Amino acid sequence: MRIGILGSGLMGGKLGMIFARAGHDVIFSYARSEQKLKRLAREAKGKARAGTPREAAQDADAVLLAVHWLRFDDVLKQAGDLSGKLVLTCSMPMNEDNTELVVAHTSSGAEELAKRMPKARIVAAFGTVPSEVLFGVYEARRKAHRPSLVYCGDDRRGKNVAAGLIRDVGFDPVDAGPLRIARYTEPFTMLIAQLAYEGKEGPELAYRFERLGK
Amino acid sequence: MRIGILGSGLMGGKLGMIFARAGHDVIFSYARSEQKLKRLAREAKGKARAGTPREAAQDADAVLLAVHWLRFDDVLKQAGDLSGKLVLTCSMPMNEDNTELVVAHTSSGAEELAKRMPKARIVAAFGTVPSEVLFGVYEARRKAHRPSLVYCGDDRRGKNVAAGLIRDVGFDPVDAGPLRIARYTEPFTMLIAQLAYEGKEGPELAYRFERLGK
Repeated sequence: MRIGILGSGLMGGKLGMIFARAGHDVIFSYARSEQKLKRLAREAKGKARAGTPREAAQDADAVLLAVHWLRFDDVLKQAGDLSGKLVLTCSMPMNEDNTELVVAHTSSGAEELAKRMPKARIVAAFGTVPSEVLFGVYEARRKAHRPSLVYCGDDRRGKNVAAGLIRDVGFDPVDAGPLRIARYTEPFTMLIAQLAYEGKEGPELAYRFERLGK
Repeated sequence: MRIGILGSGLMGGKLGMIFARAGHDVIFSYARSEQKLKRLAREAKGKARAGTPREAAQDADAVLLAVHWLRFDDVLKQAGDLSGKLVLTCSMPMNEDNTELVVAHTSSGAEELAKRMPKARIVAAFGTVPSEVLFGVYEARRKAHRPSLVYCGDDRRGKNVAAGLIRDVGFDPVDAGPLRIARYTEPFTMLIAQLAYEGKEGPELAYRFERLGK
């Protein structure tokens, strides 16, 4: 698959590298510097390159949106028309100092994004784990008992693609239902962040849903 | 410990039975009928009995609040003064038909409860798993890899007691921080409910937080 990364920061950078190592064509875009994009592409050691947001979005089978909430307008303007595209979002609707959700309860970041791009096929995924755990999960992907990763969305085909990419990264995809469930997965991400960054055991945190007796 | 159950429904009934089996003195109160309270006490097969909310709260080392959000006023009026008491709440701030949170984002059910009873020591616990999984977790308590259970609160001593009770039920207690984190654990409970009741795999769902490489 061709995957465009819009926002090559902690999450986008690492996920893009893993997608490339898993065999996908990746274009990194939208980081603090062109150097960082080139470094990511080099370190990905796969079919990866640096590009503009427009290049990342063009011809992509899936676009990963991994920018700060305050940069949505800017990156989407640069990316151009995303109608019909599968847009995976791991962006959280955070305030400027990343302490609080600015959208919650009656909506979610993912739903707001869908309102803004009604013709894109939005799936919320990858946001619920800290970036620090991603390489570890990928490296452990052949073990039994993979960690879970919830995803949600209203586009059945897009969700199937998302589930495949989640598997590629090393997680067990857990379908949480329609996009409005992001109202719960985004606060869940806040809980995960609290445990990862405020606890004493470090940020390499993952989670697993288990059914008893199974 | 002496544990008073305020609200002996699905959660309170099962948790009370498990507390009794784990060796605690339990008083069941506030169910649809006196018969149900007596049946719970009989089936608990430990030091358990039926009582009024006031009897359940009096002399209790901990009180479990497990009523529907719309019954808080009524049960608290019947229970009498809870100043200084450890109050474990697993109640979710749900609307009448249990489809949506009525408090979220800028507050939580647990925080609203604390405002109402500023002299009680509130710990939010046990709400994040379906009642259907409780007996299974208790029965599997001697196995390695117990499921996690998050709890939060502002009273250090009360949290230690809560952690002990969580262990008694068979979970691995995970301290999620201060009571305001209930703003995230309550929507997390909604996510759990979605996976448990809307999915195809049944409601016996638990979760486990894992640190990679540990």
